Amino acid sequence: MNKSWTEEKALCQIWSEVQSYLEVEIKAVDHLIHQRLQSPVSLISKISEHLIWAGGKRIRPLLLLLSSKLIGYEGTRTINLAAAIEFIHTATLLHDDVVDESPQRRGLETAQTLWGNKASILVGDFLFTRAFECMIEDGSLQILKILSRSASLIAQGEVLQLEVLHDLDLKESQYQEIIEAKTASLFEAACHIGAILGGASSEECEDLRRYGRFLGVLFQMTDDLLDYKEGAAGKEKGVDFREGKVTLPVLLAYERGGETERVFWKRTFYEHQQKAGDFEQAQLYLEKHHIYDEIQNKLLDVSSSSKKMLDIFPESRERQFLLNLVDFTLWRTF
Amino acid sequence: MNKSWTEEKALCQIWSEVQSYLEVEIKAVDHLIHQRLQSPVSLISKISEHLIWAGGKRIRPLLLLLSSKLIGYEGTRTINLAAAIEFIHTATLLHDDVVDESPQRRGLETAQTLWGNKASILVGDFLFTRAFECMIEDGSLQILKILSRSASLIAQGEVLQLEVLHDLDLKESQYQEIIEAKTASLFEAACHIGAILGGASSEECEDLRRYGRFLGVLFQMTDDLLDYKEGAAGKEKGVDFREGKVTLPVLLAYERGGETERVFWKRTFYEHQQKAGDFEQAQLYLEKHHIYDEIQNKLLDVSSSSKKMLDIFPESRERQFLLNLVDFTLWRTF
Repeated sequence: MNKSWTEEKALCQIWSEVQSYLEVEIKAVDHLIHQRLQSPVSLISKISEHLIWAGGKRIRPLLLLLSSKLIGYEGTRTINLAAAIEFIHTATLLHDDVVDESPQRRGLETAQTLWGNKASILVGDFLFTRAFECMIEDGSLQILKILSRSASLIAQGEVLQLEVLHDLDLKESQYQEIIEAKTASLFEAACHIGAILGGASSEECEDLRRYGRFLGVLFQMTDDLLDYKEGAAGKEKGVDFREGKVTLPVLLAYERGGETERVFWKRTFYEHQQKAGDFEQAQLYLEKHHIYDEIQNKLLDVSSSSKKMLDIFPESRERQFLLNLVDFTLWRTF
Repeated sequence: MNKSWTEEKALCQIWSEVQSYLEVEIKAVDHLIHQRLQSPVSLISKISEHLIWAGGKRIRPLLLLLSSKLIGYEGTRTINLAAAIEFIHTATLLHDDVVDESPQRRGLETAQTLWGNKASILVGDFLFTRAFECMIEDGSLQILKILSRSASLIAQGEVLQLEVLHDLDLKESQYQEIIEAKTASLFEAACHIGAILGGASSEECEDLRRYGRFLGVLFQMTDDLLDYKEGAAGKEKGVDFREGKVTLPVLLAYERGGETERVFWKRTFYEHQQKAGDFEQAQLYLEKHHIYDEIQNKLLDVSSSSKKMLDIFPESRERQFLLNLVDFTLWRTF
């Protein structure tokens, strides 16, 4: 796994290069977001600014911007729509904080711990309506359809996830279905909208959509892996475990495990009875069955699939950035 | 207050008459709602059907249908848009159940007590996206703008309410602002959309909007009054009180009250420390200062204002129904 691109320095560069290439646009998106968070209700501005400026990577806006530029779009409709996508994403984060009872997100205290469940839900709703206002202002019914479908998929994916939360018999295909809906659909929409703005052919549209979907799947799978495995991202560990949320590492370990291990997984997930040391035990079982390697191989497959979708596009800076973003996402797990 | 229209029988008739007049349309709306609640995720269908069929009055769909017919509209776009409005309303109910920690709504157990906070939030989000899908299908950007503005106002109104929840120094004007945003804006939107579908003049549009806004204010004010006062609606008492939510009856009583009473209101609302007998004591203070009568006089004013907005329309069955709905809403308090 010692590929040259795993070198930390090169990967930091990927990120800073794309940021500086799109600096003007990202600033414009941030400015618009700031404007639209204004409300006569001070608690709204406070909570949403807290979350929006808490160090989010703006990866979905970046995807929309890069996709549109890849096709040759030079207009400014991207700004409004990138803001809309970030609003939808932030709204789901806020509702997810309630949902996941996660104590921290992005290293800061969550809005939920700071202001309570009620505020998180309502401000999430507010951001959601702001997203639609941005889209309606843009005026394309086609784009409205894409983003409302995506928002609907996110909600359905989250409910499905809730329904099977502690279910150790979750199939890998159901896990895929959940992450495609709750995460990949918005990545896909960002790329699709970029393509549409650029006037892409239907083949180009389709390939950019699929690029986005694969990247979104990659993003969520690495996230779920990093809840157990030490990786470059330095993410807080054990959040999914403590919540008893069955993700790919656990369902694979449960499948591979003998009777004793299954008793352990049933207690900690199905019955959701956990005690000190359980998380470390879970990590040991994952290592024992080489789950980390198994998933990393899957991640390599997904990242190849994602990159392959860019084959039809001629060489360009944007194409290279999109390829680099795949590496950047994958790299976090090494 | 012994006006002829307060007679129970006549008022039940108002409701059954408008229901049977719009029977075909309401059935079509219900059918469409049922269709759109289908989801591969079974928990979504279960929760949302529970709430949608829990005996809601469909008053917002009724307003949209009556307003459009008042102007002479005979098409079927009303069905889709009435469903959208009911979805928005139901989504806010679901989020409100989390928000208000209300044990019961409409006499059934709430989705929140049955399935938990998480499910209520996520299914609410799903319903919200379904609402937008219906509107986008309709295809009018003007109507999308009206409803997304209304959804945004609802969220802002709810957050503002949360911000001042236990604040006994709430001004009556702030209370008005909150109920206009969280309740009246969707009543207003329903009437406005009906007017637009019928091709109403800008004066007619404006008056129907204002009719809807006054009716929505009336609706919420009666609701808040009935949390304390016995009325025709037989609503469960004390929900707002237990939550420590300052509404009009309380802010008026606090204003009028002496030192002892203020200590009582501060303890039960500001400090939110309540014990057995407190609610009955609160009711006594409200009676002592004639708060019920004072509010009922305000309600009479609002209902007159609402009715007055229909002056420019010629006599018709729809106009009579809209007038009757005002009486019906007011009557609940007697």
